[in-house]
Amino acid sequence: MLQRKPGSKRFPMRLNIKKGRVDMTHGSGGRAMAQLIEELFASHLDNELLAQGNDQAAFSVPAGRMVMSTDGHVVSPLFFPGGDIGSLSVHGTVNDVVMSGAKPLYLSASFILEEGFPLADLDKIVASMAKAAEETGTPIVTGDTKVVEKGKGDGVFISTTGIGIVPDGLILSGDQVQPGDKILVSGYIGDHGVAIMSSRENLEFETSIASDSQPLHDLVADMVREVPEIRCMRDPTRGGVASTLNELAQQSSTGMRLQEEAIPVRPEVHAACELLGLDPLYVANEGKLIAICPADQAEKLLNVMRAHPKGQDAAIIGEVVEDEHSFVTMETVFGGQRIVDWLAGEQLPRIC
Amino acid sequence: MLQRKPGSKRFPMRLNIKKGRVDMTHGSGGRAMAQLIEELFASHLDNELLAQGNDQAAFSVPAGRMVMSTDGHVVSPLFFPGGDIGSLSVHGTVNDVVMSGAKPLYLSASFILEEGFPLADLDKIVASMAKAAEETGTPIVTGDTKVVEKGKGDGVFISTTGIGIVPDGLILSGDQVQPGDKILVSGYIGDHGVAIMSSRENLEFETSIASDSQPLHDLVADMVREVPEIRCMRDPTRGGVASTLNELAQQSSTGMRLQEEAIPVRPEVHAACELLGLDPLYVANEGKLIAICPADQAEKLLNVMRAHPKGQDAAIIGEVVEDEHSFVTMETVFGGQRIVDWLAGEQLPRIC
Repeated sequence: MLQRKPGSKRFPMRLNIKKGRVDMTHGSGGRAMAQLIEELFASHLDNELLAQGNDQAAFSVPAGRMVMSTDGHVVSPLFFPGGDIGSLSVHGTVNDVVMSGAKPLYLSASFILEEGFPLADLDKIVASMAKAAEETGTPIVTGDTKVVEKGKGDGVFISTTGIGIVPDGLILSGDQVQPGDKILVSGYIGDHGVAIMSSRENLEFETSIASDSQPLHDLVADMVREVPEIRCMRDPTRGGVASTLNELAQQSSTGMRLQEEAIPVRPEVHAACELLGLDPLYVANEGKLIAICPADQAEKLLNVMRAHPKGQDAAIIGEVVEDEHSFVTMETVFGGQRIVDWLAGEQLPRIC
Repeated sequence: MLQRKPGSKRFPMRLNIKKGRVDMTHGSGGRAMAQLIEELFASHLDNELLAQGNDQAAFSVPAGRMVMSTDGHVVSPLFFPGGDIGSLSVHGTVNDVVMSGAKPLYLSASFILEEGFPLADLDKIVASMAKAAEETGTPIVTGDTKVVEKGKGDGVFISTTGIGIVPDGLILSGDQVQPGDKILVSGYIGDHGVAIMSSRENLEFETSIASDSQPLHDLVADMVREVPEIRCMRDPTRGGVASTLNELAQQSSTGMRLQEEAIPVRPEVHAACELLGLDPLYVANEGKLIAICPADQAEKLLNVMRAHPKGQDAAIIGEVVEDEHSFVTMETVFGGQRIVDWLAGEQLPRIC
């Protein structure tokens, strides 16, 4: 339950958001939980649907093709340059929904809180979610809070689920990709992963890189309106661009050939990756997308993307080729060629 | 991601489900995660929509009134008499969806796994989810897995989200409740809470009580078809019947008057509660519902409920009255009257 439950006017004193902490009673289903919902969650997230006060939100939908996507968020630290777990949990799910070309409609949120977590931090996180939800036009209409004992969780985990409606006639899917298609990326890659690393205690280094965490609903709306021939889109989060392209190559039984020099990587991100022994192609992004489209639409799509602030650094980074092994390969800046394999081990835990 | 991702035929050796454990690479977005999804999750949950292999599931919906509900599940222990976290996570969300009178359509599932968790246990849990999803006709169409370090989680947490479509013209909501209405419960209360207590180490006592965890979609379908005049339904989970009725009293600005002798409580549950100093009215249920309907429909509704195996012990337990304070009161078996207040502290942590 996250709905503003009735009975809330009867709390003897207000929740101490400044100095209070989550305790086990906040997950009990009783008065303390009702107060947490009323004075913290609902005060930020309030909307007509959440206010219905039932254990489910009800709304009208048009007939059509709906998409549903869910993502758990366990990012550590909870606050990082360019965002926090609250905004990330909205952006991540909104982006998964809109990669289908859908207009996002509504979100749900499930919170798993650790006993002892400062209410002030929770308040910041929920405020950040509310802002992100507002910006994307996708209200959080229903939710749930659970509390686990200290040492059985890690501050807060948030699972968000989103639904959206796909415009009539539009079908974007990885299996539509064909040899000859062009591969585009919407901007600089690796920013999110490097921002998280830089904010972790043991990996501190000088960098001004902020996470690229942002919602892509508006960029996507422009893209599918102007170039409905797009085969598919995907946001290269965990595992980065390399993993996303390997997935798409397998799904479509094609190969991918990238041009290293065409892939936008900030010099600072490049330098940080060298220091850490990482490859930017495997580093997570939270506000970028990969789009694949027919070759004759690629320039048009690129222009549409570049005309939008969230796609101003977009680039065509390679093409789809015939390959029975579904390899992703890259022509390096030195003129060589290498295989861009699946991520084998652990690049960076708890990146999102 | 929980979708059967492509690339899965290329794992050098099969996942050791019998003896293996979750490790951090299973959350990386790379090959190990793809293998876990392919060989464990997808092998149980496989369905056409999950198999689409995109980061979101797409399906057609009719125009109409849709409901959405989400629930996090952190129950401890993970396996208990009558169920486990897998079946519970399906039943809990399906029940929240159907309390609106909706036919449930689809589920999503977000898993937060702790490093070191035995794959054999995860396999049992996912198999149990798959069975529950199948029984309720609500496939899990999209999902996500994250892994946190040992000591930062507790085995497995599962957040499930469900959507459903409400039959035309049906509007069930807590604010529709009116003085004079009758209050019904679908069967014995307190079974789930007592089952969980009995399976916790430090609270062991002799009992043959199993959790009542079960999906109520079929019982609800009968009820709303035969008695569409029902005002509202709600499943009395955390906080039990007492909390649910207090919520409804507040939401509808009414009071509730219960008859203690009419409330079905198994003698074993009653005995266990006495031993533990608990009141069955506050103990969680996971397969029961409260329904409120106009007085002239109550007998008919009771008969419809009793005709269904999941409602065979249904009872009319009280009535709605005018009360500006929205009190829930109970006439005790001894002829006295007491206030059934909101749950104040912590009845039992991690009950669901």
